Amino acid sequence: MKSGHRHSGIDRRTLVAGLALFPAVNTELWSSSALAQPAAPLPSWNEGPAKQAILDFVRAATDQASPKFVPPDDRVATFDQDGTLWVEQPIYTQVVYCLERVPAVAAQRPELKKREPFKTVLSGNREAIANLPLHDLEEILIATLTGMPVDDFQAEAKTWLESAKHPRWNRLYTDLTYQPMQEVLHYLRDNGFKTYIVTGGGQDFVREYAQRIYGIPPEQVVGTATGTKFGYDQHGRPFLTKEPKLLLNDNNAGKPEGIHLEIGRRPHAAFGNSTGDRQMLEYTGAGDGARLMMLVLHDDAQREYAYGPALGLPDSKVGTFTQALYDEAKNSGWTVISMKSDWKRIFSF
Amino acid sequence: MKSGHRHSGIDRRTLVAGLALFPAVNTELWSSSALAQPAAPLPSWNEGPAKQAILDFVRAATDQASPKFVPPDDRVATFDQDGTLWVEQPIYTQVVYCLERVPAVAAQRPELKKREPFKTVLSGNREAIANLPLHDLEEILIATLTGMPVDDFQAEAKTWLESAKHPRWNRLYTDLTYQPMQEVLHYLRDNGFKTYIVTGGGQDFVREYAQRIYGIPPEQVVGTATGTKFGYDQHGRPFLTKEPKLLLNDNNAGKPEGIHLEIGRRPHAAFGNSTGDRQMLEYTGAGDGARLMMLVLHDDAQREYAYGPALGLPDSKVGTFTQALYDEAKNSGWTVISMKSDWKRIFSF
Repeated sequence: MKSGHRHSGIDRRTLVAGLALFPAVNTELWSSSALAQPAAPLPSWNEGPAKQAILDFVRAATDQASPKFVPPDDRVATFDQDGTLWVEQPIYTQVVYCLERVPAVAAQRPELKKREPFKTVLSGNREAIANLPLHDLEEILIATLTGMPVDDFQAEAKTWLESAKHPRWNRLYTDLTYQPMQEVLHYLRDNGFKTYIVTGGGQDFVREYAQRIYGIPPEQVVGTATGTKFGYDQHGRPFLTKEPKLLLNDNNAGKPEGIHLEIGRRPHAAFGNSTGDRQMLEYTGAGDGARLMMLVLHDDAQREYAYGPALGLPDSKVGTFTQALYDEAKNSGWTVISMKSDWKRIFSF
Repeated sequence: MKSGHRHSGIDRRTLVAGLALFPAVNTELWSSSALAQPAAPLPSWNEGPAKQAILDFVRAATDQASPKFVPPDDRVATFDQDGTLWVEQPIYTQVVYCLERVPAVAAQRPELKKREPFKTVLSGNREAIANLPLHDLEEILIATLTGMPVDDFQAEAKTWLESAKHPRWNRLYTDLTYQPMQEVLHYLRDNGFKTYIVTGGGQDFVREYAQRIYGIPPEQVVGTATGTKFGYDQHGRPFLTKEPKLLLNDNNAGKPEGIHLEIGRRPHAAFGNSTGDRQMLEYTGAGDGARLMMLVLHDDAQREYAYGPALGLPDSKVGTFTQALYDEAKNSGWTVISMKSDWKRIFSF
């Protein structure tokens, strides 16, 4: 399917060609309205190598005279979500959701109240919850993300997202998207790219808000996915139940594997912020034509957070930007985005 | 993402509004070219309940005053492929591909030459091949569709599709798409629908030609899918290998499950031709707004084939249209398309 923007472009050319038939027309009228130049792209980006890399990539991809021209049908760009498009500290939003769902799940399944790790979560002991080992966390994810009809899950996630707030900014999680990355999404779409989220987060969870906050429809969200099971309710009406069966672990090697499964073509641009995005960027970089691989470095403790062993920043439970990843970026021609120096502002508010 | 056509529509309106500023303009020039009325839709369909069901559905879905109006973002239509969009007799095209790949695979893995079912396939005994049981066929599919890099598979499938011909018409398999269904794909896209293939066939195989023959890009093909494995070649270059691990059996209940996995929303229209499409049509029919569920009945032995126990037609190894399916269609308000009486012609040639 062709992108909307490319059609606008073609139609605009048709229109301009049509106008040439009417030499008496006051062309100033047109140039000041329908044909006005678009505003300069990426206004929240400081001038520098990161912004320049994006502009150079789009120019090379869209200029038919460029040896790196990318046909419109092949213009696919993939974005990690947590830490790349929105805040992932101090804990992934979806994990907050799952922890906060535990009381409701335990009310329906009282046997969980006496069992770990549910007992700890229900105790409200923040330190103990923060120290739960990974396999306990997985058990919580399974209990709160599977076993219910898809429709019920979607309604619950939607309701939660409408009120849950980030403790630091006291704002809805869905407000905490990075304005400069929103501009990249728009700029790429304006140039005929289909933009995808490729996230380690749950596919069904992210699909619940991606259209609203990023303009990315459900079918362009690839994420960690469990299976569903088709069945009928008591009235014979068909419905899908979320099953505790992992189909795609969309992290690390799972990202290119998920891209192949759900998109079926190699992206020309990929954005990430941690070792979990490494293989996606490698896979993206291994094709022909214009290529853009970028990593967001969280080095702005004042406006957001600073973490990851690269550049001596403290390590973190989420999104690890290691020195090895930094070295690979340097050696592979990937561009590291410094939140501190490349972004004029972080949020839209 | 919005469809190209809808954007054309908007741009056309902008253009018309712009023209109103220039009352001296000869509007006839415009109306005879860029602004010409589109041709009547579905020219290869005879007047009758099937054509009328499609026209009524599109009118209800796109008329903002209709109580069944479907917002453009939700306009998703899914199509089974084999027997719905192209010929599936006497044997699925992909199975022909797999059988014809056996000699090349056996040349690389000589141990297969002495083993069944490969021995039978290599013998060329058509009757014995036709009688291979399902588990033998599965072994052939695994040997010929997995174990190789994704890039190699794509190149092999592409080469085969460029020369392999159907024995009855002596034409490329990719020529044997149904012209009336091609018109439905176009008509729905012209009305803002995203068209998807949802096939029991192999997702990677169908993606190899869907763009070219249906205008459906790889990311809009959902099919039976095996996993891939990310790795590096001897030069450190990343690549994906097709693995013999079934992720999605996109038949029967697997169709709505696959739709949820890769599309993430319930279709408003679904087209099939066999019991393997039943759950997809049920799932499609269970939502709000305008709905269209259609089944192609192969009742035209002269121009194509006649098969399936419904209406007393002979049974078939492929695409079974049972009497029970026919009854469910009748009881559920689905529309059965008679190839014989609803289609003026079958193919574009």
